[in-house]
Amino acid sequence: MQTAILLYPDLTALDAIGPYDVLSRIPDMEVVFVARSAGEYRTDQGSLGLIADAGLDEVTSPDIVVVPGGFGTRPLMEDTQHLDWVRSVHERTTWTTSVCTGSLLLGAAGLLEGLDATTHWASYDVLASTGARPTAERVVERGKIVTAAGVSAGIDMALRLCALLGGDDLSKAIQLSIEYDPQPPFDCGSPAKAPDELVELLRAITDERQAAYS
Amino acid sequence: MQTAILLYPDLTALDAIGPYDVLSRIPDMEVVFVARSAGEYRTDQGSLGLIADAGLDEVTSPDIVVVPGGFGTRPLMEDTQHLDWVRSVHERTTWTTSVCTGSLLLGAAGLLEGLDATTHWASYDVLASTGARPTAERVVERGKIVTAAGVSAGIDMALRLCALLGGDDLSKAIQLSIEYDPQPPFDCGSPAKAPDELVELLRAITDERQAAYS
Repeated sequence: MQTAILLYPDLTALDAIGPYDVLSRIPDMEVVFVARSAGEYRTDQGSLGLIADAGLDEVTSPDIVVVPGGFGTRPLMEDTQHLDWVRSVHERTTWTTSVCTGSLLLGAAGLLEGLDATTHWASYDVLASTGARPTAERVVERGKIVTAAGVSAGIDMALRLCALLGGDDLSKAIQLSIEYDPQPPFDCGSPAKAPDELVELLRAITDERQAAYS
Repeated sequence: MQTAILLYPDLTALDAIGPYDVLSRIPDMEVVFVARSAGEYRTDQGSLGLIADAGLDEVTSPDIVVVPGGFGTRPLMEDTQHLDWVRSVHERTTWTTSVCTGSLLLGAAGLLEGLDATTHWASYDVLASTGARPTAERVVERGKIVTAAGVSAGIDMALRLCALLGGDDLSKAIQLSIEYDPQPPFDCGSPAKAPDELVELLRAITDERQAAYS
């Protein structure tokens, strides 16, 4: 079984690595990092390079696709090569998935028309522009499309996929192996739980950075 | 302010990337990935290459050091170059930190003698062999040394560091920006919460893999 994780310039590292470190622990799972062409891709916080081992043309029928988010998704929403690849592999996947603003690429490819889906909370409007129905749940599973909320939600999504693929015991074993017993120091990880002024501040920062990529 | 994150062959990706994607969001924080020499390092699940931009000799006085874990820590426990670097930078750091079995390197460098510290739950015995007192807490802060439990605990540790460095509001803002509102599908992310047979199975697998690296 093969999982393909998409890399591109200015992705958010944790969007890709959360699912990677969960899914790669499934026995007999091959994970391949794929991008426009093989090579190094820098993340949107700037100081990390991740290596794609394969180009898009080398990965044609993965069982699972994971599209991570990041500000670099915005130019990809108009990139024919990436949109064609997403549409093509989706025809044969068991699960087509995204983390954070990775769902914008699924939406731009036409996969989310009329479908409930999620993304980073500050990008619901962009997701809606693709025809999807933004949904404030951490992991949204509709048919074979599974979208996760912002950045860290990819870990929860990947554990759900483990259960779907190999059963609850497999998922529990992997959760224990990554010691995923979260204890955040505060309880403000979603806009519903955080102070309003913090939500508005981050929304403004996101809008500004997003504009620079559009 | 500079954070140095150590890379080496066979590290666990999420150990490094959880803290990276939190700490790199602190305004004016420079994060540098550092290793024996600049270049590509593959993770212990095999299919990902991460790029170190700097060699150990180029990063001599970081404010924060993060040592991620992974099976590749075992040979480093006897590697003079790495142990000397850890001891040397620790003299000037504000915070010296580890995730998962990264604490084995801090211990081997002599930094944890008689100190409470933590690591991946399956490696308490190896940690104890360095003179540390293994402690079943998710994040253990003693003086300027902060150690985190297995893999995913690096996210919680990094948010704690954000609060220590920039105050609670900064940490809350970063938690919201990575939408860290964890909702694991099961409640078995620590040995205290997981079924005994699962704990023993994973302990046996860890011992076997660990032996291959020693």
